[in-house]
Amino acid sequence: MDFIYAIDLAGTFVFAISGTLTAAEKKFDLFGAAIIALITAVGGGTIRDLLIGSQPVGWMQNQHYLILIGLAIPFSFFLKNYILKLRRTMFLFDAIGIGLFTILGLQKTLAFGLSPVIAVMMGVVSAVFGGVLRDILCNEIPLIFRQEIYATACLAGAVLFLFLKNMGLDNDLNMLLTILLIITIRILAVKRQWRMPVMR
Amino acid sequence: MDFIYAIDLAGTFVFAISGTLTAAEKKFDLFGAAIIALITAVGGGTIRDLLIGSQPVGWMQNQHYLILIGLAIPFSFFLKNYILKLRRTMFLFDAIGIGLFTILGLQKTLAFGLSPVIAVMMGVVSAVFGGVLRDILCNEIPLIFRQEIYATACLAGAVLFLFLKNMGLDNDLNMLLTILLIITIRILAVKRQWRMPVMR
Amino acid sequence: MDFIYAIDLAGTFVFAISGTLTAAEKKFDLFGAAIIALITAVGGGTIRDLLIGSQPVGWMQNQHYLILIGLAIPFSFFLKNYILKLRRTMFLFDAIGIGLFTILGLQKTLAFGLSPVIAVMMGVVSAVFGGVLRDILCNEIPLIFRQEIYATACLAGAVLFLFLKNMGLDNDLNMLLTILLIITIRILAVKRQWRMPVMR
Repeated sequence: MDFIYAIDLAGTFVFAISGTLTAAEKKFDLFGAAIIALITAVGGGTIRDLLIGSQPVGWMQNQHYLILIGLAIPFSFFLKNYILKLRRTMFLFDAIGIGLFTILGLQKTLAFGLSPVIAVMMGVVSAVFGGVLRDILCNEIPLIFRQEIYATACLAGAVLFLFLKNMGLDNDLNMLLTILLIITIRILAVKRQWRMPVMR
Repeated sequence: MDFIYAIDLAGTFVFAISGTLTAAEKKFDLFGAAIIALITAVGGGTIRDLLIGSQPVGWMQNQHYLILIGLAIPFSFFLKNYILKLRRTMFLFDAIGIGLFTILGLQKTLAFGLSPVIAVMMGVVSAVFGGVLRDILCNEIPLIFRQEIYATACLAGAVLFLFLKNMGLDNDLNMLLTILLIITIRILAVKRQWRMPVMR
Repeated sequence: MDFIYAIDLAGTFVFAISGTLTAAEKKFDLFGAAIIALITAVGGGTIRDLLIGSQPVGWMQNQHYLILIGLAIPFSFFLKNYILKLRRTMFLFDAIGIGLFTILGLQKTLAFGLSPVIAVMMGVVSAVFGGVLRDILCNEIPLIFRQEIYATACLAGAVLFLFLKNMGLDNDLNMLLTILLIITIRILAVKRQWRMPVMR
């Protein structure tokens, strides 16, 4: 449990860094960057919580997320060049982050008594809609609508989780396996430049 | 009731097709198109449900909507050219859809104990905000802010519905009449190119 | 209390005018302008209410706000040139409006049992997110992400309010002082062209 929580916080931190760097590219000021960092990090979970009716939304009830996001902003401002060199590490944490956010979002939705199909959808929303909101606020077409396999990796992991859960697999082992699947698909997708089909 | 439900599903299907085709124009991949289809079809009702506090939002509680949206996506992908020839049929179903969504949204809001003015507004929101969200996600200025009479047709129908309801008209007859009014205004508006006034 | 309510309504009116004028610049029609006016005026409070779970959202429960917004739209349409001459008056009311909205939003959040940090954030959201939504709907990068000190003034006022509240200061006096601080920072920021730091 503590391990999951640590990954959750690490994922939040990486998402906040990604938000800050995107805001910086757009020449946002410090306040704008802070908003984008926050929304990138907690936006997906916020939309899930609003849709299923879990309010106040999650990040309002645990200050650790806010503290980490608050740390990520000056960290990104002052160590920008250093972070850009760590691109691979960042990518890995992002992959771990979306894996975990997917499964946690799915579990929360099931706990609210909603159907498995909705739970899978809310898992994906938790993982990827922070980035969608970030792109909308930066006046860009959301990256994941045109990018390599990203949401699809989350979708695959979520579906496998449900399947193994129905097979009676131990929950911790199931989480581990499905998060690893998401990470693996992400890495392969980027290495091999997998793409989703586009309409002619 | 079954008839209303059938129209509701048909409207959802047409909205999802419109979303998929918009996404395709933007060269979104399959995942992006699915998201836009979903949001176009259920976005208006979702915003209404969030504002009035009806959660989990409506489409989470009935899988039929999701199934139809899921069917609309490959349907649009594979039959794109055929659909574009059916432009008139699509337009008609869209008009029927916004008519029904307006009145259903109005009724749900009244059932939540909110005032008639709010109910009229939420009726219009139910009908047109799916399209607004679609346009924002595609990085376009929402069409209905500059287009021919669209939301105004819904507004007129919603106001008439409330008026006839207060006059004691039978509910089914009232729905039929006001939805027909919305459809008629829409058709006339497009045929005669009616426009809302713009500020000089 | 009546005085606070009067300022609240005046702020709403000015926000709605600002929304209408922005929509007019974009050549939106009357309906589009009405939507932008509404969202500019009540959007910040709406997002706060959704996040903390106060539904139906505030403006649905008091028709005065809607009436004022309804008045602001034709007022802006017909008196546009006159309003543009009143730029200083408009600016002052906007500054008073964000000051009041910040403190009212903060108090409402505290009343929902949320932490002081969250209350400060929701105060700022109440004041500035109407403008953010306005800009997104107009397909612009939100102004406050790149502009002079705006949200920061609200932040300073919110933090001071909490501090003085913990010191035991009378609530009315506290509101007066902190709103004045927000107004003063706003005026100085514009006069002296203060800017937030931007990432190199």
